[in-house]
Amino acid sequence: MGSDLENLGVAAGINLGLATIFIAAYSVAIKMPINTRVYFPALLQRDPSKFKETGKTGLERFMLNLRLLDWLHGALKMPEEELIATAGLDAVVVLRVFFFSMKMLFPMALWGAIVLIPINKTDNNVQQQHAVNPKSSFSAVDQLSLSNVQDRSDRMWAHLLSAYMFAFWAYYCLWKEYEYITRLRLGYMADLQPQPDQFTVLTTEIPKVDAQSSETMSQRVARYFRVQYPDIYFAHNVVINANPLWALVNKRDKTANKVDALRIKMERKPRKGRPMHRTGFLGLRGPKVDSIDFYEKELSQLREEAATESGIIQSSQKRVVNAAFVTFRNRWGAAVAAQTQVSKNPQLWITSWAPEPRDVYWPNLGMSKWHQGLRRLAVGTAVFFLVFFYMVPISLVQSLANLDSLRHIGTPVKEIVDVPVIAGFVSGFLPGLVLKLFLALLPLLLRTMSTFEGHPSTSTIVRQAAIKVYYFQLVNVFFGSILTGSLFEQLRSFVSQPTKLPETLGNAIPTKSSFFITYIMVDGWAGFPAELLRLFPLLLYHLRVALFVVTDKDRENAMNLQRLHYEELLPSLLFYILLGLVYAPIAPLLLPFLLLFLVIGYVVYKNQIINVYERQYESSAGLWPFVANRVIVALLVAQITLLGVLSLKLASKVAPFAVPLPVLTLVYSVWLRDRFEPNF
Amino acid sequence: MGSDLENLGVAAGINLGLATIFIAAYSVAIKMPINTRVYFPALLQRDPSKFKETGKTGLERFMLNLRLLDWLHGALKMPEEELIATAGLDAVVVLRVFFFSMKMLFPMALWGAIVLIPINKTDNNVQQQHAVNPKSSFSAVDQLSLSNVQDRSDRMWAHLLSAYMFAFWAYYCLWKEYEYITRLRLGYMADLQPQPDQFTVLTTEIPKVDAQSSETMSQRVARYFRVQYPDIYFAHNVVINANPLWALVNKRDKTANKVDALRIKMERKPRKGRPMHRTGFLGLRGPKVDSIDFYEKELSQLREEAATESGIIQSSQKRVVNAAFVTFRNRWGAAVAAQTQVSKNPQLWITSWAPEPRDVYWPNLGMSKWHQGLRRLAVGTAVFFLVFFYMVPISLVQSLANLDSLRHIGTPVKEIVDVPVIAGFVSGFLPGLVLKLFLALLPLLLRTMSTFEGHPSTSTIVRQAAIKVYYFQLVNVFFGSILTGSLFEQLRSFVSQPTKLPETLGNAIPTKSSFFITYIMVDGWAGFPAELLRLFPLLLYHLRVALFVVTDKDRENAMNLQRLHYEELLPSLLFYILLGLVYAPIAPLLLPFLLLFLVIGYVVYKNQIINVYERQYESSAGLWPFVANRVIVALLVAQITLLGVLSLKLASKVAPFAVPLPVLTLVYSVWLRDRFEPNF
Repeated sequence: MGSDLENLGVAAGINLGLATIFIAAYSVAIKMPINTRVYFPALLQRDPSKFKETGKTGLERFMLNLRLLDWLHGALKMPEEELIATAGLDAVVVLRVFFFSMKMLFPMALWGAIVLIPINKTDNNVQQQHAVNPKSSFSAVDQLSLSNVQDRSDRMWAHLLSAYMFAFWAYYCLWKEYEYITRLRLGYMADLQPQPDQFTVLTTEIPKVDAQSSETMSQRVARYFRVQYPDIYFAHNVVINANPLWALVNKRDKTANKVDALRIKMERKPRKGRPMHRTGFLGLRGPKVDSIDFYEKELSQLREEAATESGIIQSSQKRVVNAAFVTFRNRWGAAVAAQTQVSKNPQLWITSWAPEPRDVYWPNLGMSKWHQGLRRLAVGTAVFFLVFFYMVPISLVQSLANLDSLRHIGTPVKEIVDVPVIAGFVSGFLPGLVLKLFLALLPLLLRTMSTFEGHPSTSTIVRQAAIKVYYFQLVNVFFGSILTGSLFEQLRSFVSQPTKLPETLGNAIPTKSSFFITYIMVDGWAGFPAELLRLFPLLLYHLRVALFVVTDKDRENAMNLQRLHYEELLPSLLFYILLGLVYAPIAPLLLPFLLLFLVIGYVVYKNQIINVYERQYESSAGLWPFVANRVIVALLVAQITLLGVLSLKLASKVAPFAVPLPVLTLVYSVWLRDRFEPNF
Repeated sequence: MGSDLENLGVAAGINLGLATIFIAAYSVAIKMPINTRVYFPALLQRDPSKFKETGKTGLERFMLNLRLLDWLHGALKMPEEELIATAGLDAVVVLRVFFFSMKMLFPMALWGAIVLIPINKTDNNVQQQHAVNPKSSFSAVDQLSLSNVQDRSDRMWAHLLSAYMFAFWAYYCLWKEYEYITRLRLGYMADLQPQPDQFTVLTTEIPKVDAQSSETMSQRVARYFRVQYPDIYFAHNVVINANPLWALVNKRDKTANKVDALRIKMERKPRKGRPMHRTGFLGLRGPKVDSIDFYEKELSQLREEAATESGIIQSSQKRVVNAAFVTFRNRWGAAVAAQTQVSKNPQLWITSWAPEPRDVYWPNLGMSKWHQGLRRLAVGTAVFFLVFFYMVPISLVQSLANLDSLRHIGTPVKEIVDVPVIAGFVSGFLPGLVLKLFLALLPLLLRTMSTFEGHPSTSTIVRQAAIKVYYFQLVNVFFGSILTGSLFEQLRSFVSQPTKLPETLGNAIPTKSSFFITYIMVDGWAGFPAELLRLFPLLLYHLRVALFVVTDKDRENAMNLQRLHYEELLPSLLFYILLGLVYAPIAPLLLPFLLLFLVIGYVVYKNQIINVYERQYESSAGLWPFVANRVIVALLVAQITLLGVLSLKLASKVAPFAVPLPVLTLVYSVWLRDRFEPNF
């Protein structure tokens, strides 16, 4: 026993090794010109001249000029203003979250190392427990944590004091960061060239036009806003359901590309003659036809259909949706219209700021509030069940991760498992990895659900998905890892006895610190460099290029430009902030691991934001309040946990003084929201 | 035993007798011209000509022309439009609440009488319980309630069905009423002559002017609004702290009135010579002075002081408060300014609709948000303790009200108590009365607390007080009457085990129906006619007239014009609605008593609103959302109670079907708020 420090060391070694391998591979791979479209797609899209101006040799020269780890230097030196200009404020906010977490957690780590760990280490509760009950595990990690302090000990005053210091420091950091990001946001919006969306409100729930009435939807909107905002109304666009047209146009473009590809192939290998194919099932049956002729005929037919559909859209009321973008003469007018209730029936003529044109999620625009309400209820219920019954695979992981349970399988397994490296792998690497795999599928699912809820903009959909992912992680990864028994049982007992929560947390949290340390190492130390290497996109790209790419358009498609997945990155970052705040007073050993994780993450994401991710839309830091509110939640969980630990340790003098902390945090959060949230 | 029906009968007799006496006395008393200022103060203020035009004989003729109960006819026949025009919309909303409750509860009472009572009566659970345990009370009232249905009986399907019917009927009534009152409100505001407050917003939290800056507060406000609302800004008034001036003016007027009174007294009895008094302690010591000269000198001094203070106000910045009324060129502009956030810091330049001039509560205008927040926290804590520790006197009442505990005092008490009339009095009248007395002091206290919170208008203060009174009544009268043990203990057990609530309610509610029936009779049947008679103001007025009145001003003051105390009336009405909804499916016998109460109340208050209460301000039905939201709370309590009763009666087939009801009510309430509340 006592080997848990060793296991941690092995896990750290494995993960640092993996990280080194990934980073080295990346440093080499980005120098190969054939990988440009994998590692610099965003740069390529933004500034193609950089790569193209002097032809292939220029590109090669550019690549070879890079020294190993030059990318690191390039990423780190870019100043924030330039980053905002190139990658947008949303991306910068993600980096600010990394930075904010480091700023908040670093002094806590320092304080923990200098003050708390010596205080914990010099007591001997863990040893005594082990002496009394030799079957209980004796953990060197626990010796550095609050678990090692004896019951009723006065040493716990130090932990209480630390909790207060940490809380005030967190309040200060959060306030400063909120202020900074608000300044960035307002400055960003003020500096922009006038954008159409700054003059425009989205109006939904426009009352339907009767079939008898000769008024069109457009006339109705014009009449309404001319009366309500006579001096500032400028123009409007009724939203049109162009989904059928879009499908036709898409199909048309694909067919056109097919024709091009066939022509190019024929030119390259003129000996082969005109390409032919069969029209039946999978090109295996039916009569043989000349492919180019066939697709050209199809193309002209699709062009015709698209033109017809486009005629329907322009001339009839059939495709008109009861929503409109209304533009005002000045920003002030749009601000007024977006914030003011105009109709007597507040469920009609609902106005809100128009999302950016890129940000609008068109398919949802015509959906009625009523319909949205029903869908949200349905999605809410589904998410509830998803959150509370997704634990079946996770509890499987928990049992897998347990060295002892593996040893019980049989002698050969036991022998394998007892090899130190493998033991380290099993207890340090496997649980995190399997958990991570389970979680990888989730954001996609939750994003689809959020889309289904009917939000009008992509940024809102992403934000809603992020909230769902966060709660999922909180319940499943955090509570699911620390509590025993089914999550639903836990929920039941929590609802029927909420005052038991601090004790439950206080009982479970301290013993789980090494589990979460390994989780951090797998996810961050090795995970982030893997994100850098983009192994999966890399393989996919080269496979596509080798097999399918013919036209320039194909090559562009193969690049598979991706946006930054905020709904995955932010919730997991917030989850780590939660871990940091919870363990800061209880088991400060976790913090250095976390800080290294944050540093790696910061560097990796700064590089990727510059080079890789496409800026799909700009919500001007619209995600920040979500982050700030979850940091508050994390603080609350941390403080309630500490309260639970203290009362379980029978610190009857100390524990009552921990009660005001969550109250203070709640009061602070009310103030913080009131002060900043209206600007978002 | 079985005498509880008899006791109810006796109580009903006593209370109906009292009601008859009060009404008869009122019918006679209003015919006496000397009571005009007690029974028609509002009428007198509104339309003095009606009483004065032909001098005293005209007044007498008007009085004598009234036949007995003519007042009733007069009150009932006044149409709503006229009532709105004379008494204002706020008062009419109170009558609408009476009307709404009758409309909602009458069909429930009918259904209860026709369907539920026969179903309950034909079972025999109460008899069996009594046979098994002869010491348990055998109650005839309980035989008509759900208590008489046997455990596991299929009869409970009827109660479940009724609960659903009642819920949907309540939803419908609430929706219709909300719609009607919204129409009244919007119509009222549209019909009004243009009022200054419709063009004005109240701006608070104006940043303080530096001592160095040469800009005055007024210039700062003008500059700000000229920039932000260039075309629609019209003018502004900075709020000035005139409290010192007001005190001086008040004192001046009182002294002037004193001088007048002394002159009149001297003229009436010239033989007595000039009045003299001593200047020392209570006029008993010190040198004797000529009273008229003395007060005239004081008067001129006060006039001077008031002039100086008025000079300070007009010329210096000392009395300027950082709030201002900003007027716009049109209503539209004011609406925009009131709803729009303008400052980058949302905690500065806060705008809201200006209250009516009469409604403004001036002393609170300059209070900072921060200060208000602290005060609200303090008041919130105080109210919490008040609500949960005010039960000491109430639990005393509970023990007093118990016939058995009185019998235990001794033989003489026992003999007295066993006289049927006295038994009826003790169990039917005393508990309600004492409870009522305890509660009478409360609204004043809670209103003072709400004033202290710093709301800018009287109507808001009244609304906040009403909310506090409501929660007090809900916890103390409702839960306090049905639960055993200290309220704080109950709160603790509720917080630690919230899922036990339905059972606790289901256990306690059914047995308390006769208690609440007597409470209704005392409070409403006798209480409302007592309100009609205004015994206390009547005595006070005549005492004042006899002892103190000399000048006309004195007589006016003696009239003691009062506003309708919404913060007392509405919460108790809502409390009765709660009783009605809770007992409708469980003990429908309560409903007829409640309906009679509502009819009496409606008539009494319609009369008093026309004749007695002063219209101090007009918030245009601003109190209605409070009422509607509390009706939803009442529905929830009722449905949770039924759920508890059903599960305690082991109706394992029926009870699960009661679970969706509260969920349905919550969904409905979200919709209702969303649909109507923004208009208030």
